[in-house]
Parts: sequence; C-alpha cells; structure tokens
Amino acid sequence: MDVGVLYSGGKDSTLAALLLEPFYDVTALCCTFGITDEYQHAMEAASRVNIPTKAVELDPEIADRATIRIAEDGFPRNGIQYIHEQALETVADGTYFDAIADGTRRDDRVPTVDRSLAQSLEDRFDISYLSPLSGYGRSAIDSLVDELLVVESGPSDDIEKGDYEAEIRALLSERHSDTLVKEAFPEHTQSRVVRRK
Amino acid sequence: MDVGVLYSGGKDSTLAALLLEPFYDVTALCCTFGITDEYQHAMEAASRVNIPTKAVELDPEIADRATIRIAEDGFPRNGIQYIHEQALETVADGTYFDAIADGTRRDDRVPTVDRSLAQSLEDRFDISYLSPLSGYGRSAIDSLVDELLVVESGPSDDIEKGDYEAEIRALLSERHSDTLVKEAFPEHTQSRVVRRK
Repeated sequence: MDVGVLYSGGKDSTLAALLLEPFYDVTALCCTFGITDEYQHAMEAASRVNIPTKAVELDPEIADRATIRIAEDGFPRNGIQYIHEQALETVADGTYFDAIADGTRRDDRVPTVDRSLAQSLEDRFDISYLSPLSGYGRSAIDSLVDELLVVESGPSDDIEKGDYEAEIRALLSERHSDTLVKEAFPEHTQSRVVRRK
Repeated sequence: MDVGVLYSGGKDSTLAALLLEPFYDVTALCCTFGITDEYQHAMEAASRVNIPTKAVELDPEIADRATIRIAEDGFPRNGIQYIHEQALETVADGTYFDAIADGTRRDDRVPTVDRSLAQSLEDRFDISYLSPLSGYGRSAIDSLVDELLVVESGPSDDIEKGDYEAEIRALLSERHSDTLVKEAFPEHTQSRVVRRK
C-alpha cells in the first residue's frame, strides 16, 4: 500500500514516515507555493533518511488567503490550520496513493485534523487519512526520535526547514512588514532531521 | 523500550501490538477478574502471533461496579469505559514498562481515552500511554489487518475471545439474568486472530 506523508524535514513528519514505513511504501510529499525554494530543504532531509520524495505544488491562492488571515489575526494559528487542510485536500485529490498522512500529534494545538475532517477527506477522495503520531504524547515521541534519528534543533530563523512557515513568512514580509512577521511568528525552536541513527 | 498492550486476542489489539513491534519490546497484557478463564483465549492468540504474554489480575471490585452500572443502565457503554480506565490504571501503576498501550481506534465510541485521561495517566504514573490505532480510520485498519493477519470473525457468542466482555456477561448472568445479558450485549460480530500471514 502506498502512503504520501506531508513532509517538512522536521522530526515530527520524519517520525510519522518512519512509523508507517514497516507497513506502507512511504513517499515524502514536500509542498511549495512557489514563493521560495525552501521545500528543497524538506526534499534533502527526506533523502538523508532514505525516504522517496515528491514535490507538491500548492495553489498560491492558498498562501494568499492564509497570509491575509494571519495579517488580520496577528497570529498564525488559523492561517496555518487553513493551509494544512488545503494541503491535505490537494494531495488527496486524484492521487494514486492509498493513504495520505501527516505528522500531527496528540498534543498539537495547530494544525489539528479532527475525526470529522478525517472522515470527510476519506469519503470524498476514497483514500485513508493517517496520523500515526496522534496516538503518541510528547515524551513518547521524544523517546522514539531520540532512538531513531539525529536531529538538529535551533531558533526558527536558523533552521533550514521545508514547511509552510518559511514561505508564508516571506509573503508576509513582502506584502506587509518584517514587524508583522516577528509578531505573528515569534522565534521558536524548530527541528531538522540530519540522519537516521 | 518496553510496552505493555492491553490485549484481547481480537484484531484491534493485535494490530496495535504489530504497529508497535518495530519500535518497542511488546508484551500482550491479558486481563482477568478471575471470574472465568476466558483470558486464556487472549494468551493463546498472542502466542499464535508470537507476542510475549503476561496475565494481569484486575480487582474483582472493578467488575462488581461495572456490572452494577450496566444493570442500572441497561447498556454496557459506561461499564465498559469504567473497566477500560481501571485496567489502564492497574497496568500503569508500578509497572516496569516504559509505556502502556491499547487498541482504541479513531472511530471507536467506547472505550475512548481522551487527551486529558492520557495525560493524567502519564503524569501520575510516569509512563507513556500509546494508542497506535487512534490515527487510523476503519478502512485503513481493515486493510492492514487483511495484509498482516488471518482473522476469524463471527457472532459474539461463538468467538473465543479474551476481553472483559465475557467475564462481565458471566457476572451479569449470575447476579441478574440471561435476559439482561442479551439486552445489554446484543449479539455483535467479534474477531479472533488465528495467525500472522
């Protein structure tokens, strides 16, 4: 069975891929709006852990709408949730995968994929939606990551990741201001997977 | 890392064990109140799929309280939820396992372990609680079971399983009536794992 995992190069989406790997043929789906090339960091991270990759172009309008929402809100939560849902819709629509997956965790606040959204994706696109980390809490995830992966962590500005955040920050900076970027995305710790242990 | 999985011999708890197996040393925990010997069916099922087993004695008072509740309610939902929570507490308390797990699924109505109960178990007993199937919907679980296991399904009366239900039915029958057993547990399809594929 084939599964495509929304993949950022961080520890969560990498662990999600690793948990699926014994049971599925896993492809890391690295999404881009075409604003920057930062999805290449995700492609490289997947290659370093030997997971096949596929670039996925997301409609730039999704980024536009998310950016407007984040600028209005002054915080990224709703915009990031919107992007995640649209990314799932994009990869689910007309795919050859039996299942799509992501790295959302039990303790995550955003993005979240609740049961009704999962069921809706499954019904409309005739695929399975999998969130292999949603049965695991923070300490179990940390232990598994520690056992399986070498990870580099650091401030969000310094870590070369390939998630949506980088492109949205660039768009916010271009259309609004760096001040808004710093307000909406306060510096936080990001992770980048270096290799398997 | 060691994980103990609440184990009934059915397809869900067996699949939960199989999903954990590449990453943990898995032990199937087969619970009994000492009312009947039906937990032996769970022990045998685990042996057939080569998962190490451990019998766990649950306090008979848990069964007493659950039975009273089911008799009052006329349906098993709250009683079964109570037993499941007490079983998790029992195996979490003073265990040598790094984690405890169960076969609860995303689409299950009962038993459920919500985020706050999971967090409470983890905080009080310094273990991780894992529900590896909670990121999987029904069709994904069916596909995985179909790929990994030979399963025998049939009416609940005919299938030799080792979950709490059998002992609670026996206790209800003894203390109340067979009519109540049939009302509270209408015949439903159960599964029993025969072997790995």
